[in-house]
Amino acid sequence: MPFQGNALVIQSGGPTAVINQSLAGIMNASRDYPNVILKVLGAYHGLHGVLYENLIDLSHEESNTWKLIANSPGAALGSARIKPRNSDLDRIFEVFSAHNIKFVFYNGGNDSAEAAQLIREEANRRQYAIRILHLPKTIDNDLMVTDHCPGYGSVAKVVSHIIAGDDLDNRSFFNSVKINVVMGRHAGWIAAATAIAKKGHIDIEDHDEVGPHLIYLPEVEFNEKKFLNDVQKTYNRIGRATIVVAEGIADQLGEEKFAGEVDEFGNALLSSSGKLGDYLAHLIKKNLVYNSSFGKLRCRADTLGYLQRSIAGMASQTDQDSAFLVGSMGVHYIMQGETDKMVTLVRMPGQTYKCETSLCDLKLVAQKTKLMPRSMINKDENGVTEEFFNYALPLAGSVPEIHALKPQYIKKILLDYVRPSK
Amino acid sequence: MPFQGNALVIQSGGPTAVINQSLAGIMNASRDYPNVILKVLGAYHGLHGVLYENLIDLSHEESNTWKLIANSPGAALGSARIKPRNSDLDRIFEVFSAHNIKFVFYNGGNDSAEAAQLIREEANRRQYAIRILHLPKTIDNDLMVTDHCPGYGSVAKVVSHIIAGDDLDNRSFFNSVKINVVMGRHAGWIAAATAIAKKGHIDIEDHDEVGPHLIYLPEVEFNEKKFLNDVQKTYNRIGRATIVVAEGIADQLGEEKFAGEVDEFGNALLSSSGKLGDYLAHLIKKNLVYNSSFGKLRCRADTLGYLQRSIAGMASQTDQDSAFLVGSMGVHYIMQGETDKMVTLVRMPGQTYKCETSLCDLKLVAQKTKLMPRSMINKDENGVTEEFFNYALPLAGSVPEIHALKPQYIKKILLDYVRPSK
Repeated sequence: MPFQGNALVIQSGGPTAVINQSLAGIMNASRDYPNVILKVLGAYHGLHGVLYENLIDLSHEESNTWKLIANSPGAALGSARIKPRNSDLDRIFEVFSAHNIKFVFYNGGNDSAEAAQLIREEANRRQYAIRILHLPKTIDNDLMVTDHCPGYGSVAKVVSHIIAGDDLDNRSFFNSVKINVVMGRHAGWIAAATAIAKKGHIDIEDHDEVGPHLIYLPEVEFNEKKFLNDVQKTYNRIGRATIVVAEGIADQLGEEKFAGEVDEFGNALLSSSGKLGDYLAHLIKKNLVYNSSFGKLRCRADTLGYLQRSIAGMASQTDQDSAFLVGSMGVHYIMQGETDKMVTLVRMPGQTYKCETSLCDLKLVAQKTKLMPRSMINKDENGVTEEFFNYALPLAGSVPEIHALKPQYIKKILLDYVRPSK
Repeated sequence: MPFQGNALVIQSGGPTAVINQSLAGIMNASRDYPNVILKVLGAYHGLHGVLYENLIDLSHEESNTWKLIANSPGAALGSARIKPRNSDLDRIFEVFSAHNIKFVFYNGGNDSAEAAQLIREEANRRQYAIRILHLPKTIDNDLMVTDHCPGYGSVAKVVSHIIAGDDLDNRSFFNSVKINVVMGRHAGWIAAATAIAKKGHIDIEDHDEVGPHLIYLPEVEFNEKKFLNDVQKTYNRIGRATIVVAEGIADQLGEEKFAGEVDEFGNALLSSSGKLGDYLAHLIKKNLVYNSSFGKLRCRADTLGYLQRSIAGMASQTDQDSAFLVGSMGVHYIMQGETDKMVTLVRMPGQTYKCETSLCDLKLVAQKTKLMPRSMINKDENGVTEEFFNYALPLAGSVPEIHALKPQYIKKILLDYVRPSK
């Protein structure tokens, strides 16, 4: 009898705007192998669904359903953050066996790669014949080997459009310093992507400068004195500042006050709190020397939170394509007998952006984090280089289109005004 | 000599995604009156620009410039939050006189209407012939008389797309309660607009329900017990909850801890802090009774902050049209001799949305706030009625298009799993 059976799709960890594109890619390609992949099942809420035998039959959904769902953010199958315990591994193989599961597509980040490895080791112990492929997915873009991670391009598009507009909003006021805290615990890929906003501007005043003006990345040592000095220099130059900070900076401030709960993989919760932004705003209010003839200092902090990965209708086309590609190629690879690997994206050389896929060993990915290379960080360590733009622009797929007035001032006629304090 | 002179445009208060559309409308219509409106000047940073004689000549910009700037968020002329003091009024008329200003377009909210009134009273005292029209602008949608305020439609579109995606993100997890704090100090129009997300869903499971599930408005008394009871009931029904809270709820909690700085008009700063969301999340974590077999309670809070009014490329078309219309009609009205009024939008009866303009006395607008009528709030006081949807849907201009899977579960074969604690 040939190797055949059911396939299982597991969506894991934080959802992205395009996680369902990978699912759609799997569904689309699996139709090419009707005699090998008998059915495609979905684990309802990731490993939780496997443990509790909550499985969904995906095979009879119409292809139009997948098109619609692929364009929606959130994990359509439900996600989970569960690290399999020893007792869980027994159960997982009971369920695999009961439902004839021979192919597993694990769609997640480096924690999911670790879980996939644990399942593989258990399969070896049991001599259970199964093929497991990991499909990269994380807005953090921090998986090793692959050129980029599906999910990142959309968040890059979202945060750059947000910061582009926010910088114009900030520019509307005098003496205005705006801090935006974005996701990124260990790696600064998301914070760096806000710099794409700088590529969208034209017509701005010569003495002005488009934001974000300062970007702080977890890859760089965060020093409050340097931070304040950077902000002061920016204020002195253009009278305002738009600042982006990766949430991971909180770790460097060494304060428990910024961290919340910890999940089963040991990750502390940083995103759902305004504390880091409030702390930095307080620092600036206490220390910035500003020109009070333009009014009070206006310092505001926003924490962008979960919407970064989920605004409806804002996915990047390149990102959607990448996510679909790793899903469909995952099926073709697994049909060629591949297992215990992650599908990677490989950027082709040349002027025009193009990615193909390849495979890498799961061990190279599990529990590892790809940081931004030094060559993508500017020498002042508060921004990015052209190398980063070359890397990230095609992934975001579009730059925000915004314009500002280049004012022609009228000649003054009167004496200067000194505004009385009352 | 006929009444003729220069026109002055003042952008005031918080910017919106379409504030520059009104400016473009003024620039476009003023071209029809070259012998009456000699030049159009812009006040650089609102009243600050008037006081310090920082005026911009807008007349020689090409019409294409206005098209580009109209589509960009932020106040292109610069904004300010200045309440004119007595000494300022002298200076304002020195500047008006020096620059032959005979027509003023004051684009702002109810605070700007108050400032416009003070300027009018001073003009009367001085017998300075000037015509002043107020053009409505506020994301808060809380100006009296007008059907809606330019700026609101775009924020309604933005927050509904954010909450639609956020609800799918939240739906990806078990036991997940998500709180989103949106703008709206006295009126709940923005919070209510998130309900538009409910109109975008299809294909969702029968026992499920699209979010936002609970919306708390400043118009309604906020009671922590009722809040917790609502959340518990929602959790018991669908195992999760997506909650929206207007920032103004903080006032009702009677805690100084939520408020920040106060501006010249006496408005406390609420938006730039995660404190209210953190407080409510803490309440829920402490009190919600949940099913721990699905894992820990996941409770997160985001404060949407300034991005609500400024995401590049997300303006509502209806909103852009409304903003342009009040600008251009403002010019036509002022040329007909109108003064001391606000341009209002009047919705025409009929199936299809259509607005024309009219005028109302400034006194009806200044310092007043239009709250949501009781008929747009549901009887449980935690959501909206169809009347609200009829009102708001055309303003947002589009509903988020998102889809979720309606799972077909596989029949279970095994005994129930009891997960050991280690």
